[in-house]
Amino acid sequence: MNFYSALRSIQVKNNSLLCIGLDSDLNKIPKHLRSAENPILEFNKQIIEATKDLVCAYKLNLAFYEVLGEKGWHTIKQTLAAIPSDIVTIGDAKRGDIGNTAEMYAKSMREDFGFMASTVNPYMGFDSVEPFIRDESHGAFVLAITSNIGSRDFQHLKARNKPLYEHVIARVKKWNTRQNCGLVVGATRTQELKSIRKLAPTLPLLIPGVGAQGGDLAAAVRYGCDKNGEMAVINSSRGIIYAASGQDFAEAARTAALTLRDEINAIRAKYF
Amino acid sequence: MNFYSALRSIQVKNNSLLCIGLDSDLNKIPKHLRSAENPILEFNKQIIEATKDLVCAYKLNLAFYEVLGEKGWHTIKQTLAAIPSDIVTIGDAKRGDIGNTAEMYAKSMREDFGFMASTVNPYMGFDSVEPFIRDESHGAFVLAITSNIGSRDFQHLKARNKPLYEHVIARVKKWNTRQNCGLVVGATRTQELKSIRKLAPTLPLLIPGVGAQGGDLAAAVRYGCDKNGEMAVINSSRGIIYAASGQDFAEAARTAALTLRDEINAIRAKYF
Repeated sequence: MNFYSALRSIQVKNNSLLCIGLDSDLNKIPKHLRSAENPILEFNKQIIEATKDLVCAYKLNLAFYEVLGEKGWHTIKQTLAAIPSDIVTIGDAKRGDIGNTAEMYAKSMREDFGFMASTVNPYMGFDSVEPFIRDESHGAFVLAITSNIGSRDFQHLKARNKPLYEHVIARVKKWNTRQNCGLVVGATRTQELKSIRKLAPTLPLLIPGVGAQGGDLAAAVRYGCDKNGEMAVINSSRGIIYAASGQDFAEAARTAALTLRDEINAIRAKYF
Repeated sequence: MNFYSALRSIQVKNNSLLCIGLDSDLNKIPKHLRSAENPILEFNKQIIEATKDLVCAYKLNLAFYEVLGEKGWHTIKQTLAAIPSDIVTIGDAKRGDIGNTAEMYAKSMREDFGFMASTVNPYMGFDSVEPFIRDESHGAFVLAITSNIGSRDFQHLKARNKPLYEHVIARVKKWNTRQNCGLVVGATRTQELKSIRKLAPTLPLLIPGVGAQGGDLAAAVRYGCDKNGEMAVINSSRGIIYAASGQDFAEAARTAALTLRDEINAIRAKYF
């Protein structure tokens, strides 16, 4: 099954465009978990158990696991094992390296960890992305616009009358021969999101920056979706996983996830 | 001590611009090592022992360690422990992520692993690079031009009459307030290397692509160096570490490293 079909299928099944970012940080998880053998794993498992019928995807930013040292690798594997196999899992490491090295990174993401999709940095061009999209079942979300301040440094530079990120989008559309390429689009500017959806009518858009990073949810849903009101993957991390810090954290995460999913669906109902 | 001083000091001490890339691959190391408890670590240690008086730096591409799974983290730590503390160590993971995540990646590289420098991808702009250059003793080599085919996709797009990579260079020069920023410049085009050195007369240039990737050594040395014939970091990996595949691999690596160091020095003697 190609990546688009897998994504569409779970979005329909769980009636959800919500992706929860498991950016789990030892300093932020509830105190009572810190005595567990692997506190981050315990935290992730409970969050997943409480939210797995409400999401289309979970995203793990690898930075949060790398700081755990040797244990990090194991924690990623065990976290993925706790996620039902029809939910999309995104390894967010923004990889970008030359051919033979990109091969190894792609192999890690796809086979060793077993993620269903990866985020990829476009700066080094096609051969740095290709190993991630060779297998139709593995998706690659290529950075287009990011939500940070530094995104203005290069992504908006104009070459031949269009910003760099539009060149990236044009290339990604060409690379997308297997229905498995998407874009990362920081949801901070409505106009940009609107124009990106117009440029790439069918590509899945991974939209971080909703919540802690202050993106506009209505725009993210209205312009992030394809014409069927699908294929936007709207990520929220801290607003959900740290909704409460006591014994009730998982329940609170469920409530936050349910609320956000339903807000997203209300906006979908309005526009699609 | 700032990064530039550390780099200059080891380049003088070992009279060397050579960086050995420890891209150690289980399928390529000598067969007799494969029964060791940790074959890659054993391989790295012997290569380091045989070459440590001939180099200014060792570079570890993290992809080669990540595929080792949990063991990879340990292997990086132990490899770094085997490298004399005055030799520059470069963690090559081409990081690029938003502020708080970049913080974690930088912390991993600088504190958990203990690398002296990192490679960084510029696409996400200043705040994705800043955590790597906050401490003057840690260096960051920012990707400018890479040596792969895909480098033509975006790096050479012209914005305001100059290619994207020149915009990157201009920014990196501004960011370099602590004498710890450098550039990655794939050594495949003499003219580009020449113009980059002119644009950035004092920045250290990490030049991969000599050897297996077919770069031109004479140009890499002549234009990669600053006006004192220093500050080029010329990386070779496969040509040195896989110079032989038998019991004599470390000795063969030493011979290859010595030859390349001396070739580099002969070119330096000619032009500086």
